[in-house]
Amino acid sequence: MIKYAILGYGTVGRGVAEVMAEGREKMSALAGQELELGYILVRRDFPGDSYADKMVQDFSVIENDPEVAIVAEVMGGTGAAYEYSRRALLAGKSVVTSNKELVAAHGSELEALARAHGASYLFEGSVGGGIPILRPLYQCLAANRIEQVFGILNGTTNYILTAMDAQGQSFEEALKDAQALGYAEADPTADVEGHDAGRKITILADLAFGQNLNPQDVPTQGITGVTAADLELAHALGYTIKLLGRAIPAEDGCLVFVAPHLVPMEHMLAGVSGVMNACVIHGSAVGEVVMYGPGAGKRPTASAVCADILDAAMHLNGGKTMGLGQPGGRVAPEGLLSSPWFVRTGAGPELLLAQFPQAAPVYGASRECGFITAPMTRDELEASLGAVEARAVYRVLA
Amino acid sequence: MIKYAILGYGTVGRGVAEVMAEGREKMSALAGQELELGYILVRRDFPGDSYADKMVQDFSVIENDPEVAIVAEVMGGTGAAYEYSRRALLAGKSVVTSNKELVAAHGSELEALARAHGASYLFEGSVGGGIPILRPLYQCLAANRIEQVFGILNGTTNYILTAMDAQGQSFEEALKDAQALGYAEADPTADVEGHDAGRKITILADLAFGQNLNPQDVPTQGITGVTAADLELAHALGYTIKLLGRAIPAEDGCLVFVAPHLVPMEHMLAGVSGVMNACVIHGSAVGEVVMYGPGAGKRPTASAVCADILDAAMHLNGGKTMGLGQPGGRVAPEGLLSSPWFVRTGAGPELLLAQFPQAAPVYGASRECGFITAPMTRDELEASLGAVEARAVYRVLA
Repeated sequence: MIKYAILGYGTVGRGVAEVMAEGREKMSALAGQELELGYILVRRDFPGDSYADKMVQDFSVIENDPEVAIVAEVMGGTGAAYEYSRRALLAGKSVVTSNKELVAAHGSELEALARAHGASYLFEGSVGGGIPILRPLYQCLAANRIEQVFGILNGTTNYILTAMDAQGQSFEEALKDAQALGYAEADPTADVEGHDAGRKITILADLAFGQNLNPQDVPTQGITGVTAADLELAHALGYTIKLLGRAIPAEDGCLVFVAPHLVPMEHMLAGVSGVMNACVIHGSAVGEVVMYGPGAGKRPTASAVCADILDAAMHLNGGKTMGLGQPGGRVAPEGLLSSPWFVRTGAGPELLLAQFPQAAPVYGASRECGFITAPMTRDELEASLGAVEARAVYRVLA
Repeated sequence: MIKYAILGYGTVGRGVAEVMAEGREKMSALAGQELELGYILVRRDFPGDSYADKMVQDFSVIENDPEVAIVAEVMGGTGAAYEYSRRALLAGKSVVTSNKELVAAHGSELEALARAHGASYLFEGSVGGGIPILRPLYQCLAANRIEQVFGILNGTTNYILTAMDAQGQSFEEALKDAQALGYAEADPTADVEGHDAGRKITILADLAFGQNLNPQDVPTQGITGVTAADLELAHALGYTIKLLGRAIPAEDGCLVFVAPHLVPMEHMLAGVSGVMNACVIHGSAVGEVVMYGPGAGKRPTASAVCADILDAAMHLNGGKTMGLGQPGGRVAPEGLLSSPWFVRTGAGPELLLAQFPQAAPVYGASRECGFITAPMTRDELEASLGAVEARAVYRVLA
């Protein structure tokens, strides 16, 4: 019998309890032992809850129960979650988590602690919710030199951009709808400013390139500046707009950033609508693979956390880790990446063609125009623009 | 130091040697020991080949070398490949393979042999080439009850259907082009008749539902009957045509079959073009996930085989298996599955609307029409058709 504990009883915590209960027979068979819920760590009473008898408010009860071998940390944040994860690992217990903020900030240290104590530290649910992304990256593609990782890593912003694209809504209107439907939080900052996607691409960059980066060094541009006019012009040019997290190895460090991109309509990512996520991996042997699915939510995220509980249960002897790099990786300046750019401008045709003789501008309802440049760096773009006033500038996924 | 051998030096065998050489440093670090090529089993001399000194023509040399811990069988077929896999496992060596024919026919037996001898038997490359599909299915989604698996599992037929759709070619023209480009073999039977996809969906059904089926019991309808007129009418209705392998658990056994389907243009699978493959998995907790990428080819398939070599190297103590079912699973009659159907017919509007009052037919260049029925079983469709002569009938993916 293997006992596990769930730290936190919010949306994901409830999902983990539910999915583990549903899959108990199958998972116990795979683990070769009965998997049993020992405790749920809560901050208040839940009278009448079917798991009330498992609930404790003092982490040391879990920490000091030698029968608890696995701890699922789904509290979120970097405060108590960090402390309890450390203490669990120091006690030789395996830790699994969907807490991207904690993994991005302290994953490398926690993984080292796990290795030192023969325990597992697994975090499949921290990127892409229920979509299998991390195991495919570090296990199935282990023979590849990874050349690039990018994707739609945040469901809230993808919902908003999809609504703006399909219904011509403004950012504010689409955000309000997303909040009403529960797809965006009352304070949507972490999502719409790209911070959530930034944490996820930080984790992906680490597993792909061994570069452990400080997530605060990762430049993030959100979608608050994307307008209906941008989407109208992008459409006319054969593109849609998606918020992408991207990671590309560079000579000195790693290019990692989050920004809105124009994505060609025929690209797989253009078909990713609503709250769905997708991650593209380029490998030296395999070429391009894409993983698509629900990037958040109670049961999808629980699906990933429960798979990690099972994996930890199957590696109680010695533990299993994913292979994060050592702290000190360097984020290379995003502007150095050469790419085509989309420019929205009110400049007249004469000025425009003087600066961009090859441009094939399309005109929108507001008499503004949009066009796509040749591939260049951000500095080269600034120099090329000259007197052309750019009202919006986004990279184009080429 | 861990020695491995490659059985077969065709396209995939060369790919495995190449990718293992490129990734040697990374993979050895992950395995914690040097991974070294011991032998390549060949049927003739390759004078001057850079691996000539590793080549042997007698399998017993590999079998009797106690240093060889892992054997990559990439010969194909169910003759010598079957015998050598058995003998390797009996000698306690792990076997990894991309040989779908062998896995579909004898995988369950070989897996049992591996377990009995503490060895691994792994076959990620047998389905979807380089796309991570099997590990995501049996590891990352282990907490889910799998509700359905389906996908585009054969690149040759997808190339042909994509060309027919985009360029209005006939099946024969598109096949000839595919052969000229090396995407179809001189004898294309196994691909165009759906046998290759049938083996892959047999393997997926087993891992998803624990139903070990005889691949010869799986009904396969290929694409030789698909016409330019079918694609024209499908397009007008908002669909494209894809060859799908599908597996759905049934009350008594499992619905498993291969057949051309109409796929809605907005479905992720509709965007899978050319030789690419994609697999859709529905899980009780995660919902829908899709894995997309190159389903065949030298380096993509080698990517999967090499990851299995590494996984076997990391499980030398005790071995690792994927969890195939016991032989004796039952294929439920495909006709029982209720779905909408596409019908192409030359019947006049009066007759058509008498039989299908809800039909909204579209008319093609040849004055034939196409329409989509309500969901029904195959028997119900036959009864509904009455005097309407159906020139083509395909399921619609709903």
